[in-house]
Amino acid sequence: MTFLKSMTAAEKLATAVWQRDSLLCIGLDPDPKKLPPVALQQDDPIVWFNRAIIEATADLAVAYKLNMAFFEAQGEAGWRALRVTIAAVPADALVILDAKRGDIGNSAWQYADALYDTLGVDAATVSPYMGMDAVKPFAAYEDRLTFVLAATSNPGAAAIQDCLTADGLPLYRHVSRLTAELDDGRGCLGLVAGATRPERLADIREEAPDSWLLVPGVGAQGGDLAASLQAGLTPAGQGVLITASRSVLYASSDDRFAEAARRAAKELRHAINAQR
Amino acid sequence: MTFLKSMTAAEKLATAVWQRDSLLCIGLDPDPKKLPPVALQQDDPIVWFNRAIIEATADLAVAYKLNMAFFEAQGEAGWRALRVTIAAVPADALVILDAKRGDIGNSAWQYADALYDTLGVDAATVSPYMGMDAVKPFAAYEDRLTFVLAATSNPGAAAIQDCLTADGLPLYRHVSRLTAELDDGRGCLGLVAGATRPERLADIREEAPDSWLLVPGVGAQGGDLAASLQAGLTPAGQGVLITASRSVLYASSDDRFAEAARRAAKELRHAINAQR
Repeated sequence: MTFLKSMTAAEKLATAVWQRDSLLCIGLDPDPKKLPPVALQQDDPIVWFNRAIIEATADLAVAYKLNMAFFEAQGEAGWRALRVTIAAVPADALVILDAKRGDIGNSAWQYADALYDTLGVDAATVSPYMGMDAVKPFAAYEDRLTFVLAATSNPGAAAIQDCLTADGLPLYRHVSRLTAELDDGRGCLGLVAGATRPERLADIREEAPDSWLLVPGVGAQGGDLAASLQAGLTPAGQGVLITASRSVLYASSDDRFAEAARRAAKELRHAINAQR
Repeated sequence: MTFLKSMTAAEKLATAVWQRDSLLCIGLDPDPKKLPPVALQQDDPIVWFNRAIIEATADLAVAYKLNMAFFEAQGEAGWRALRVTIAAVPADALVILDAKRGDIGNSAWQYADALYDTLGVDAATVSPYMGMDAVKPFAAYEDRLTFVLAATSNPGAAAIQDCLTADGLPLYRHVSRLTAELDDGRGCLGLVAGATRPERLADIREEAPDSWLLVPGVGAQGGDLAASLQAGLTPAGQGVLITASRSVLYASSDDRFAEAARRAAKELRHAINAQR
């Protein structure tokens, strides 16, 4: 479908949201220790499992977030599995590489090259510890969608992300402001905002009124879905991608795991839409 | 040399420092656009170039820092090149993967697995934006040496790393304190402290009196070598790894690039030792 090539990642996402009536992103964290037994009997368990999940949810999810860590742990074979999994995602859904890369200058350009040229995905996550220098090379890819970590969903995040700038702004808010400034209305930068802290999500939305927010933490991590949507949705009921991984992938470990994943995905999509 | 297997990374580094009388780490950032023409004529230019640099400097450098970005940009072939380059480093020198990974929970364990088990290196860099949750799985590998980003050498770093905790501690200092606490005298955690800001390096040394500091930024980035060493060295004249990349790798682009790299490495080792 070559017409898709002429769309930016943001346009592709908006189209998928409209066509599927969904804000659901499925996180593919293929943990060999958690795969259902039937997957482990296949030639390439990770790829087989990913394909089964994608096929079972293709009309429900607007994006698939692939967690690089689980592929990297398999070395070169994992890199191949990553490439094959990317190819298995429908052309009209977004592929987000959850890479959390964060380096500067020439290295950052090489990371952007690795993700956006060599692997050719629509979107990726980056870490801002080294400052916006780490984001700029990604932001030069205006037809992609780069999500910058702002407030993450883990307990230990606050010790870093709640530090204050000289102006008294918490770091996660500062990062959100710098990201919105760098994006400058182009729609190629979004933010990661964990569901476990909805009040910070509201701050982030205030700093970046039009940006897409990637929101992990509603499933296994126990984040509050309703509060997160209330804090993050734009007035048009858009702008939030709720991402679920374990609660969908491992909804069942028996042979009908894909059906169970579909059911979990359908329920979550419905629960999201009930709040829009 | 099997006896090396029974040493921790910190012991291996201390031995290499003593044997080579050196605190020099060479950064391998194999940029295809900068490789000498003679390298581009080889079957596998990146591996061939890395091998030539390692062979020319093996008695001078105590560590080689491999920049993951430059390998990842080549996809699966890059992953293979990374593996072959790791194998080319002498068994008594440290391999540091400059990966700047930074994720949490299961993902962080998978990243640690990728670097320390699958690739089997001695040391790696990690990013603390998500908090110490991102560091803990690496710190569980007590026989390795994990460098946590504290103050980096790029201009845009201050906007993030100088933010203040509730106690008025700058973030880079806070990260250093948390890292030293987590290390708790085990010697498996170090810190990255850029040479472009020696006063911050002194703060970091204050927070982590016994930790190894990985110090980039003295070559092409113009950091102050003497001031950095003064700020970072322990009373025993140890504890600092000065890492140089471009100034060594690309000292010459003609056929004698390896000799030029050796000369540059030798001069830098000498300049470092003159300050110890």
